[in-house]
Amino acid sequence: MNTATVLARIQELGAISEDSACLTRTFGSGAMVKASQLIAGWMQEAGLLTRIDNIHNVRGRRVSKNPAARTLVLGSHYDTVVNAGKFDGPLGILMALEVVSAINIELPFHIEVVAFSDEEGVRYHTTYLGSKVLTGAFDPSLLSLKDAAGITLGDAIQLMGGCTEQLLHDKIPADQWLGYFEIHIEQGPVLYEKHIPLAIVTAIAGQQRSQLIVKGMAGHAGTVPMEMRQDALCCASECILIIEQWAVQHRDQVLATVGTLQVVHGASNVIPGEVVCSLDLRSADPDMLRKTHVELAAQLADVCEKRKISFEWHVVQETAPVICDPELSTLLERSIPAAERVKLVSGAGHDAVAVSAIAPVCMLFVRCFKGISHHPQEDVEAADIEVALEVARSFILQLI
Amino acid sequence: MNTATVLARIQELGAISEDSACLTRTFGSGAMVKASQLIAGWMQEAGLLTRIDNIHNVRGRRVSKNPAARTLVLGSHYDTVVNAGKFDGPLGILMALEVVSAINIELPFHIEVVAFSDEEGVRYHTTYLGSKVLTGAFDPSLLSLKDAAGITLGDAIQLMGGCTEQLLHDKIPADQWLGYFEIHIEQGPVLYEKHIPLAIVTAIAGQQRSQLIVKGMAGHAGTVPMEMRQDALCCASECILIIEQWAVQHRDQVLATVGTLQVVHGASNVIPGEVVCSLDLRSADPDMLRKTHVELAAQLADVCEKRKISFEWHVVQETAPVICDPELSTLLERSIPAAERVKLVSGAGHDAVAVSAIAPVCMLFVRCFKGISHHPQEDVEAADIEVALEVARSFILQLI
Repeated sequence: MNTATVLARIQELGAISEDSACLTRTFGSGAMVKASQLIAGWMQEAGLLTRIDNIHNVRGRRVSKNPAARTLVLGSHYDTVVNAGKFDGPLGILMALEVVSAINIELPFHIEVVAFSDEEGVRYHTTYLGSKVLTGAFDPSLLSLKDAAGITLGDAIQLMGGCTEQLLHDKIPADQWLGYFEIHIEQGPVLYEKHIPLAIVTAIAGQQRSQLIVKGMAGHAGTVPMEMRQDALCCASECILIIEQWAVQHRDQVLATVGTLQVVHGASNVIPGEVVCSLDLRSADPDMLRKTHVELAAQLADVCEKRKISFEWHVVQETAPVICDPELSTLLERSIPAAERVKLVSGAGHDAVAVSAIAPVCMLFVRCFKGISHHPQEDVEAADIEVALEVARSFILQLI
Repeated sequence: MNTATVLARIQELGAISEDSACLTRTFGSGAMVKASQLIAGWMQEAGLLTRIDNIHNVRGRRVSKNPAARTLVLGSHYDTVVNAGKFDGPLGILMALEVVSAINIELPFHIEVVAFSDEEGVRYHTTYLGSKVLTGAFDPSLLSLKDAAGITLGDAIQLMGGCTEQLLHDKIPADQWLGYFEIHIEQGPVLYEKHIPLAIVTAIAGQQRSQLIVKGMAGHAGTVPMEMRQDALCCASECILIIEQWAVQHRDQVLATVGTLQVVHGASNVIPGEVVCSLDLRSADPDMLRKTHVELAAQLADVCEKRKISFEWHVVQETAPVICDPELSTLLERSIPAAERVKLVSGAGHDAVAVSAIAPVCMLFVRCFKGISHHPQEDVEAADIEVALEVARSFILQLI
């Protein structure tokens, strides 16, 4: 297997952007169409039966002679965020392609390498369009969604040559899946800090996104004595530290982040009357997510009550955790030297989330430079790719 | 003395606004010119020698026959903030006028009632234009300041009929001041909470306004473990609580307020990398202000260092505290029944700050409804005005 080929293709793909100043390749853009042609060419070169489906997934298939064969799907996405790195997505596609190219024996299962067309969801604010079509879970009501320019998803699909009525026929039916395997950069700093190249992903965290509203009483910063204040920002600060403390105490089970905070009508000489902030909770364990919500809600309400401040917790979005398939993950684990077996929960979402609804999934994380992702500095060392290619090949051969 | 007259005039003046939807009367506006004419008329009615000076202060003078007479100035401002209450400023002017009208004996000192034209500083972001002209401290370089529409202060003065070259001649020279006495609403909740109508102001707090910058490391909310984070908002929260705790511990000496806070490039799924917030410190004691800065800077730097987060404290503005004249304040105190003598530090600035540079000043606070100020709900009870009128008359008569 050739690490240099993988890296050269990542560079080539990374040069295809809808923005000349940086890498941005969103669903339905000219850049995406160009990238799909490039990937399709590489798949054909690898001898795969190649086609672009109606949601513009690029799919290369190697058919087994086994009449009872099911399909092992290997893939990742080729759309990007705005001002993206080159590895998030393409690494998984191009490594899969390289591994499949290197396996020249007859297999008892079909292999399909898939480059998904929409995982980041930048244009229509909905993720996993590509993988949902592949699993038959695509919701046709999404076709009327409009992008910022007013173009519907349905029109965008047709402009790329897709037929929206055929989307449901692009699925691989549930009984034909052997499993799904995705290689992806970690997008976090754990492997980098631990000096370990790879990790087995045990689960993809569930997420609860909420809005917290803390309402006190605005007042003049120069005239209201400290003991008469109902300062919403001081109260929110106490809440933020309670949230942080809870997450640190349960550090292997939950992540908690207050990422945004607004002081409503804030001014330097006005005591904050109202604060609105976001809360992002993630856990691989749905019970832990629930428990965190319940416990934090009680503790925060308590703090607010003591300060005579009102408190609201609005859940904005919830997604359930996905547990990676234990059997597949065990085979993946066996492919990694015992001393280097690290298990991680993925805090970010991946196409594997959509696929898990219909098939067993497993994922391999590759160390990335300083954990940086969604940024031009995103980088992966050639040596890590080399190790990961070996692990991936060994994993696939164990499925025979 | 007639409380009803004071209240009726406050309503009449409060109806003169540059905005039909609310009370706004900024320096140089048509509403201000109209208000000045109304006040001048009332001054003439009271038998005062009335004139509008070059900065558009309205000045009504009763001249003493005493050849050695100096001048006791009574006043407050008639400009307002945007969407203002009716009492902030006008109460002090109209009560002074009512008291002076009621004193019919020959006095050994001149009296001048002054309605200052700019205390709030809304239009040119500089306060005390009126009182600085009266004390000869007006800085001519301010004349080139431009408002939001590009009109210079010099032009605004000329448009109202003022002569910018004569501004320096509008002062009352230092050796001619007997003192300055200002009645003002408290603009805070202390008297309202204590059920006391009036307070003697012992000092006008000095103020330090600063910008605090807390810089950590942004990261993905789903992928960076709690123990590897450098979360600028968690750190800022800890800082805010330390600031609050300090001010509560020194509650009679200092006020501290973080009124604004921005998470730079904040997003719900991003660990805050940088937080910028304001800090407003106020104290009647310059040493306490200094000590607070030094102690807090050390404590905050400590917290930030423990979190591996960088910290900057930029002082944006500093004003020194003003101590009210002890002799004048003692006379004022004697005018109030012993059981109701409350002393307060003014956390808000007043024209007395500018006058204190040249003459002894004293101030009387009147209770306002729930401490509300800079808001249409600003209100004062008639009974409190009645008590305050008596106290003011008694005070002036003690100066004989």
